[in-house]
Parts: sequence; C-alpha cells; structure tokens
Amino acid sequence: MNIEVCYSPQSYPLFHNSESIVVVIDVLRATSAITTAFYNGVSRMIPVATVEEAVEYRKNGFMVAAERNGEMMEGFDLGNSPFGYMNAKVKGKTIAITTTNGTQAIEAAKSASKIVIGSFLNLEAVVEYLVKSKRDVLFLCAGWKNKFNLEDTLFAGAVAQELIYKHNFNSNCDSTIAAMELYKLAKYNLYEFLSNSSHRNRLAKLDLERDVKYCLTPNQCPVVPVMEGKFLVKG
Amino acid sequence: MNIEVCYSPQSYPLFHNSESIVVVIDVLRATSAITTAFYNGVSRMIPVATVEEAVEYRKNGFMVAAERNGEMMEGFDLGNSPFGYMNAKVKGKTIAITTTNGTQAIEAAKSASKIVIGSFLNLEAVVEYLVKSKRDVLFLCAGWKNKFNLEDTLFAGAVAQELIYKHNFNSNCDSTIAAMELYKLAKYNLYEFLSNSSHRNRLAKLDLERDVKYCLTPNQCPVVPVMEGKFLVKG
Repeated sequence: MNIEVCYSPQSYPLFHNSESIVVVIDVLRATSAITTAFYNGVSRMIPVATVEEAVEYRKNGFMVAAERNGEMMEGFDLGNSPFGYMNAKVKGKTIAITTTNGTQAIEAAKSASKIVIGSFLNLEAVVEYLVKSKRDVLFLCAGWKNKFNLEDTLFAGAVAQELIYKHNFNSNCDSTIAAMELYKLAKYNLYEFLSNSSHRNRLAKLDLERDVKYCLTPNQCPVVPVMEGKFLVKG
Repeated sequence: MNIEVCYSPQSYPLFHNSESIVVVIDVLRATSAITTAFYNGVSRMIPVATVEEAVEYRKNGFMVAAERNGEMMEGFDLGNSPFGYMNAKVKGKTIAITTTNGTQAIEAAKSASKIVIGSFLNLEAVVEYLVKSKRDVLFLCAGWKNKFNLEDTLFAGAVAQELIYKHNFNSNCDSTIAAMELYKLAKYNLYEFLSNSSHRNRLAKLDLERDVKYCLTPNQCPVVPVMEGKFLVKG
C-alpha cells in the first residue's frame, strides 16, 4: 500500500487516486474538534465549505458550528474549539460545521472514495483503521488558506511512520519523507517544536493556548469519523 | 525583510508580493544547469515553458536546450545536464531552454518584479545578492510537476538559515521553518539524506548519479543569473 502526503487542498487534484483513503488533517483545530465531538456522542456532522450553507442549516433548525480566522462566528452555536463539544447538549445531535481550512479540505477531496478525519487525538485509532483497510493512503493537510503548515504535516508524518515502519506500507513521495523527518524532530515535544509556527502564534493571540495543548496530546479520543454521503459519522 | 518558501509553482499566486525577489530553485537540474552555463561564459538564456516555443527558437537559429522527464529531447543541442554546459561551444552564446519543472517555475513567477536563479552551485553568491538587495525574499521551489520535492526545499532552507541567523531577515512562515529544519538534518551529507528521495532515484535510473553529486556540491559557480525582460543574464 502506497502513502502520499499533500500539503495543500489546492493540490489535491494532483494526488487524486480513486483507490486511496484520504485522511483529512486540520490539527488546529477543525479535525480535533470533529474527533472530540464524536467522542462526546455527536451523532452526525455535515461539513460545509461556505458560511451561506451553514446559515441555511441554521434556518432549518440544525445545530451549527462556524469558524473563520480562528474565531467562532456570531449567531452560531459552536466554533471549532474542541472544548465546545465536551458538553451534554451535543449528544445525539447532527451538527453542520464550516471552518477556515478543515471543511475546505474535506470539500477539496469530495471525489475521494473514502474520507476519514485525523488528528493527534485519534492517532492510534486512525493507524488501526488504515492498517485494517489495506488501501493506499493520501494524507491531505488542510494547511492555512492553501499554504503549508507544520502541525498537519507532523501528524501525517506520525501516522506514515507507524504504517511504514510497523506495517506493510511504503512511499516514494518526498513530502512523506519530509513529514516523517520533521515528526522525528518534533515528537518528544510537539508543543515546543511548534513554538515559532504561524498558527500556534495566531491562536496564542486569541488566548487559545489551552486548545493548542489539548490538540497536541495524542490518543484522547479513540474514534475515527468517516464521510458517508454528505455526513460524517463514527467509522 | 521577510522570507517565505513556496513549495510548488502552482501555489505561486498565494505568495506573490510585488516587493519580493523570487529565487527560483530546481536543483536537479535546471537551475544548476543554468548556473553552470553562466559560469562557463554563456551570454544570455531564454527560458520558455513549452517545447513549441523551443522549436521556434531552434528554427530561428538559436542554440536550444530541451529536457522532459529527465532526458534531453531529440533534435536539440543540449538537455539540462550541467556537464553539457562545460564546453567552449556555449561561450558567448544565447541559449533558449525548456525543462520539465525549472522553466515552468520561472514562467509561474513571471509577474515578480525580480527573479534570480538559485542552486547549491551558487549558494553563497545568492546569499550575498539577497543581503545586498535588502528586499523580501520568496523561494519558489520548482518541485516535480507541481509536487513538493526535497532537494529544492533543502536549498531554500540553506539560504533562509544564512539570511535569518547572520543577517537581518525574518520569517513567520511554516514552510520556511520546515525547510530550515530539514536542511539542518541534511547538511552534513546532502547526497545521503536524499538517498530515498524521488528525483534522485528517477535520475539514478537514467544513470545520472554524476549529475546529482555535482548539483549537490555547493559554491562551484559563484554567479547569480537574473531575469531581465525575457532574458536570463549574469546579475
């Protein structure tokens, strides 16, 4: 089974392979929030790319999460802070969600035959899912507005390393090599390694250090959200 | 002065800044060949994106270099092996050139106010040029058919590190951090670090290990080719 890493949703068409499972990654914070939501009993989520679509779902009575540029948008129920989903009120609910990068990445990969949601919070669960699936894997990093970002790359490297070193996966892709090398440097202290990274600093300005620390702590939510039609469900 | 690194010509529009000097990088081998050409007395070069344009220049009596997928195209004078340019016959000539990735990257950046050509062969010369210019810098990696590649990233990291640690440049861009971290890992043995990389293996199959070793040996050609109108000239 082959592994590739795509650093920007914009580049997805270069990597599309109808056989691949696409792991969408937006560590800070959309895919961490989604993972947390399912771990806390959310029933289904509907990722949408635009605020307009989110507004429509709101009008139709859905609980709706909307974030742009790190902040929850006014008039919605939730943002993309994982802590917002650790709440009994989300249990059993269907929640529509739109975010700056994560839901754009899901949209970019909509032609994929299978999309799963990855974050440090469900690292081992994602590894197990991919090992069982025995299919090619494409890690799609959400990045920041189509630019490369470090934390998504580190997660891709963490999973790729498990799959290649301990299971029967391989890669001849330079972005996979780079992601694994960077993860090797970062793994003993992800938070410290990211101290100069752009998005950690962006969130620090918004007083979201607690979110960052939580999102970088592996294996707190052993669930794998997967797309089925327009819904994310527990895989 | 700010530094950014763009990993794919496709992403150039996200990084365009009319104040920046754009350093186009295609270590294996277009920008190494161009640097070598000027060091060996080539007068001007005309980078073109398509084979059709190259054919036109050939018809008009120019010396023309054309490479696709690692190999020199039939019916042209040169490919993109640097060794082809270590030859008295190129001295004083104007040479049109088209390559799989390097000349596509130059084309992608054509709206830049200044384009210079970077490779390990002119590493220190490029650093000096950028320090003197005192302008923002964008490293544009040619990659492989718009995908990320390691050797171009390592060169961006090598120059960025010099500019940030020894001069008054800075960066808040994750791709710059990643490039510098990867270069720190690779710098004691670039050739070994790239042993699993996709393009080194592609060239090994074409029996071009000698080219790879040459292209990874810094500071053999202290010249900085720059774009002026449609021509590359010695800067």
